Amino acid sequence: MAQRYVRVRTTEGRIYYGSLQIDRSVKIFDAPPWLNGKPTEMTCSAETYELLAPCAPSKIIAVGRNYREHAEEMAAEVPEEPLLFLKPPTTVVGHDMAIIYPPQSQQVDYEGELALVIGETCQDCSPETASDYIWGYTIGNDVTARDLQRRDRLWTRGKGFNSFCPLGPWVVREINPGAKLQTFVNDEEKPRQSAKLERMVHSPDELVSYISGIMTLLPGDVILTGTPKGVGPLQVGDRVRVEIEGIGALENPVIPKPTPRLDISGAD
Amino acid sequence: MAQRYVRVRTTEGRIYYGSLQIDRSVKIFDAPPWLNGKPTEMTCSAETYELLAPCAPSKIIAVGRNYREHAEEMAAEVPEEPLLFLKPPTTVVGHDMAIIYPPQSQQVDYEGELALVIGETCQDCSPETASDYIWGYTIGNDVTARDLQRRDRLWTRGKGFNSFCPLGPWVVREINPGAKLQTFVNDEEKPRQSAKLERMVHSPDELVSYISGIMTLLPGDVILTGTPKGVGPLQVGDRVRVEIEGIGALENPVIPKPTPRLDISGAD
Repeated sequence: MAQRYVRVRTTEGRIYYGSLQIDRSVKIFDAPPWLNGKPTEMTCSAETYELLAPCAPSKIIAVGRNYREHAEEMAAEVPEEPLLFLKPPTTVVGHDMAIIYPPQSQQVDYEGELALVIGETCQDCSPETASDYIWGYTIGNDVTARDLQRRDRLWTRGKGFNSFCPLGPWVVREINPGAKLQTFVNDEEKPRQSAKLERMVHSPDELVSYISGIMTLLPGDVILTGTPKGVGPLQVGDRVRVEIEGIGALENPVIPKPTPRLDISGAD
Repeated sequence: MAQRYVRVRTTEGRIYYGSLQIDRSVKIFDAPPWLNGKPTEMTCSAETYELLAPCAPSKIIAVGRNYREHAEEMAAEVPEEPLLFLKPPTTVVGHDMAIIYPPQSQQVDYEGELALVIGETCQDCSPETASDYIWGYTIGNDVTARDLQRRDRLWTRGKGFNSFCPLGPWVVREINPGAKLQTFVNDEEKPRQSAKLERMVHSPDELVSYISGIMTLLPGDVILTGTPKGVGPLQVGDRVRVEIEGIGALENPVIPKPTPRLDISGAD
């Protein structure tokens, strides 16, 4: 089994990077592995930690319409150059954490994606050297309030709600371009999305090179490489699972937004 | 004179928050002032530090078309709800630091703006309580590659290049809504932009409330409140200066992108 690099919060509330062991204990590292973190003597047993998103990106750069058949289903053209947008870091949640359905939207869609994790500072790299800067791969779900995305035309609100970027469950170092990405809702046997990663219009190397010519990529930053066709709505109570061969499965439940605490300080 | 809160890098390379004194020395704080930082015994004299952007935001949320006359000059409508977009943290530079003209663009515009600095974690706040979360105010320049913004339709690339978000020179606690924002290019006496802040369509309190219902705002985060009419292009060699009464002046030179180091590691 390939090494699985995780980030965990212990029952005492401390956050560590580490590697997942076969008994589901975690070997704790002294720093993020892409910042040269090394295993320590410390191990957390399975009952003593919660899995977090496997990295804490300073920015999340996502790519629109990077699978031809998805652009077609959205009645949009495949752009000649990668079409970029940002998700704020506050969108990130880990495996098994809730996607919160915002009351502002009537249509919240899943979008299963391959996520690249940047390993070192990268500015103006060529496509030929880009792979040196990709430390590893995880699974992402670019959750989208489709109605708000359409209404605003800019995508920031529709893709920017808290919890709208599940990432995980872990990072692996290598991925096979022929690996299949599949998205499932609840117990359905038929995947809603199913495509090989090699169907991307712009490859991971091309994306890293293109983005690094605009904004400097930093260790731990995430690039979401676009979603294949088959996007569709989620309902409160659903569970959505994105699988990528060679990585694993990222599953998240969808819950209603908790009622906010009463805000009485502004009362007359 | 109102207190001016700054962030500096000392000649030894250490970064501190502090307050600017009348002799241009800086009284060093033990933390960002919005995280309850208090003055220490340490002072840096004027020759021993470089002014940085006065905060280090985890996200920068900007608002499009928030002055009616600017929407008109862009032949666009004023949106009923604030139109949000994000600039990556890598866009931030301080006062007097260079705006780098990217070779990908033929038209780089200035956009002078009032910037809000968030003081504490804010989620789902009402407009009536929003001002409790605004710690202070600084000046921002939402530099924009207009041609790329138009071509992509999404604004991420056009507004996301390294150095495209000058912020500073310092933060003040209070601002007069009647204060004037003016933008000057080089030694021109006539401002290119000139408007009172109260001409905003959505007020700072409305913006904080609206954004906090989508994404949690964190201490040090920045909201750019939109630009008035009069946006226009910059050329390499220009200096652009945004002034806001009661804050000061944010000035930045425009330079060409330095030639990248040769990337030979990918050669055959």
